[in-house]
Amino acid sequence: MKVAGFRAAAVAAGMRYQNRLDLGLIAADEPVAAAGVFTRNLVKAAPVLWSRDKLASGLARAILVNAGRANACTGPEGMAVATASAEATARSLGCGSDDVLLASTGVIGEQLNLAALEKAVPDLVGKLGEDQLELVAQAMMTTDTRPKIIEANGQIDAAPFTIVGMAKGAGMMQPNMATMLSFILTDAAVTPDHLTRLLRRGVEMTFNRVTVDGDTSTNDTVLALASAKAGNAALENDRSPGSEDFEKAFTGVMADLARMLAADGEGATKLVRVSVTGAVDEGQAKAAAFTVANSPLVKTALFGQDANWGRIMMALGRSGAQFDPDQVIISLDDVPFVLGGRAAGAAQAADEVMRLPEFTMHIDLGAGRGKAEVITCDLSVDYVKINADYRS
Amino acid sequence: MKVAGFRAAAVAAGMRYQNRLDLGLIAADEPVAAAGVFTRNLVKAAPVLWSRDKLASGLARAILVNAGRANACTGPEGMAVATASAEATARSLGCGSDDVLLASTGVIGEQLNLAALEKAVPDLVGKLGEDQLELVAQAMMTTDTRPKIIEANGQIDAAPFTIVGMAKGAGMMQPNMATMLSFILTDAAVTPDHLTRLLRRGVEMTFNRVTVDGDTSTNDTVLALASAKAGNAALENDRSPGSEDFEKAFTGVMADLARMLAADGEGATKLVRVSVTGAVDEGQAKAAAFTVANSPLVKTALFGQDANWGRIMMALGRSGAQFDPDQVIISLDDVPFVLGGRAAGAAQAADEVMRLPEFTMHIDLGAGRGKAEVITCDLSVDYVKINADYRS
Repeated sequence: MKVAGFRAAAVAAGMRYQNRLDLGLIAADEPVAAAGVFTRNLVKAAPVLWSRDKLASGLARAILVNAGRANACTGPEGMAVATASAEATARSLGCGSDDVLLASTGVIGEQLNLAALEKAVPDLVGKLGEDQLELVAQAMMTTDTRPKIIEANGQIDAAPFTIVGMAKGAGMMQPNMATMLSFILTDAAVTPDHLTRLLRRGVEMTFNRVTVDGDTSTNDTVLALASAKAGNAALENDRSPGSEDFEKAFTGVMADLARMLAADGEGATKLVRVSVTGAVDEGQAKAAAFTVANSPLVKTALFGQDANWGRIMMALGRSGAQFDPDQVIISLDDVPFVLGGRAAGAAQAADEVMRLPEFTMHIDLGAGRGKAEVITCDLSVDYVKINADYRS
Repeated sequence: MKVAGFRAAAVAAGMRYQNRLDLGLIAADEPVAAAGVFTRNLVKAAPVLWSRDKLASGLARAILVNAGRANACTGPEGMAVATASAEATARSLGCGSDDVLLASTGVIGEQLNLAALEKAVPDLVGKLGEDQLELVAQAMMTTDTRPKIIEANGQIDAAPFTIVGMAKGAGMMQPNMATMLSFILTDAAVTPDHLTRLLRRGVEMTFNRVTVDGDTSTNDTVLALASAKAGNAALENDRSPGSEDFEKAFTGVMADLARMLAADGEGATKLVRVSVTGAVDEGQAKAAAFTVANSPLVKTALFGQDANWGRIMMALGRSGAQFDPDQVIISLDDVPFVLGGRAAGAAQAADEVMRLPEFTMHIDLGAGRGKAEVITCDLSVDYVKINADYRS
């Protein structure tokens, strides 16, 4: 996969892991329109603070990403290391350090190995190539079991455009956002303001609707860069011709990545869409969907493939949503599961759906028109093993 | 253990389990002062609705409790079964059914076997004895690994009084309250109003500060009965002589039971007190303590005995509490763990505390005078196994 105007590379820099790609770089040929959305966690990693600050200009030239150490809770030294890593990248690229965005993922509280990083950066820049985005998607993995990268194409007027999105996820997945990094590159021409608008709207409906464990990372970062090589008239706002089509493709890439993140949640064996309708309003629908999606008892039942609908009722009841339990209807895909707040009687068919690797839990609260959908995964023995052993 | 004015019994009624005690009865010699606190889950089990209604009189004669099926999400039939079980108990005891309180725990959504229950009740009443409270504590267990019962004694003026409390817990443990049943019996004379006041205050500071998995059951019930056999002048309000001492003992029993519940949380290998100080106010302290106590990533680190302090910082950061990360101080028992938001450097000593079966995590946010303490346990491989397999 490639996107006109961008080159990429990755190296094994020994940032924490040995003999695997763990440092990646995406570089535009010149400063391009850039937008970002970051974690809402009060505790923000140094690279988050750096990138948020640099994006004020609406332009950026490169993204440097490392896996293994998060550079979070590392104090002034961590910020100095972040600054030095941007400066090293800028020197090799021949640009200003303000044009270099940073993203880190991994263990919180350990300093990055700046010497190793500074040694690797010239090599990384020397290896930049047009067809190497997949290597960056690999380099930013932590407990991910596979890289996540996807391409979409379209046209604005007669100008064909490409979007490539990549993401890493796995644990700490919950709105605001996940231990999640995602970079979305396009050759379409979009102004920084409009790119920011489209990114925020898209993140809210995609990455912010995925949850693995309800935890929220200190490092979550979604960055979008638009190189304007596609030759279209720059999209400036929602009324710009072609903006609607572009947004559809752009949000679609994020939706696909979000689905890939949930499917590759730590230890996940199952991807479940929790779709709530009939809530008093959208806020209550979201609360109900997230409470079900994050309930350890619901998630272990999903892992056990146990059609234990009472746990769903329990979670709905503690979500804060207002409804009459006797009006609740739940189906698994198309199989009736709960009718009027009680077992619908199709136990065997429900069991069969529970054994699928992917299905939708439709919940109608019968209380209004509010609706929301959240994507989640199960809570498995492996989730606990992965997270009990992650550091050691 | 025994409390003057009360008798108890338990039988193996085949309510769901085979060949184990699963139906218990506590009976006072006559109607006595009674108070209750119930789940705040919107979805309330039939026995919760029944008992809450009957407690309006401030008096009760008996508590019938079963394990195995929760009689929740069972509709009008479930309420009819609850009513019939109270009536059967009343017939055998020779009292009105309004004097019989009910509590159930177990799987949601399955009807109780009323025929088995009605068959067992006369036997149960026939077996009532003074020294059998422990049998009831056993009969109400579900995934509990041991019964939880405790006695406290004191004096009001010269009149000695006894309090015996029992509880069952295990999963779905979170304020408002837990899949938790607890019965507290005393021979002290306390008016219904004051008993209600003392119970509510005590629950808020004890059972509502314990969390296993953040889920909230449909059946949570704490009942207190006071037989007035101790001979003290009835405690009517906080100014009644002896009320303070009594409250101390009464709350102490609940605090001990709460601790026993957390220690016996499903799959728990470790009991941890999360004590937050220095928050802006008590509400933020509670939010911070509960977010840390419920974070799957913190809880799996506790299970892994991994002194991964970054996950605690992450949880604090997403709790909604306001603070400066660089001011945070965390210690494990007396070992400095985080100073100024960064590793305190006593890693080996911290690892040793993490290996203890019980310790306190002191967190000071450095932002004010708000404080709160929550008791939690770790999230283990066994938690997932227990809850993935619970029904099958």
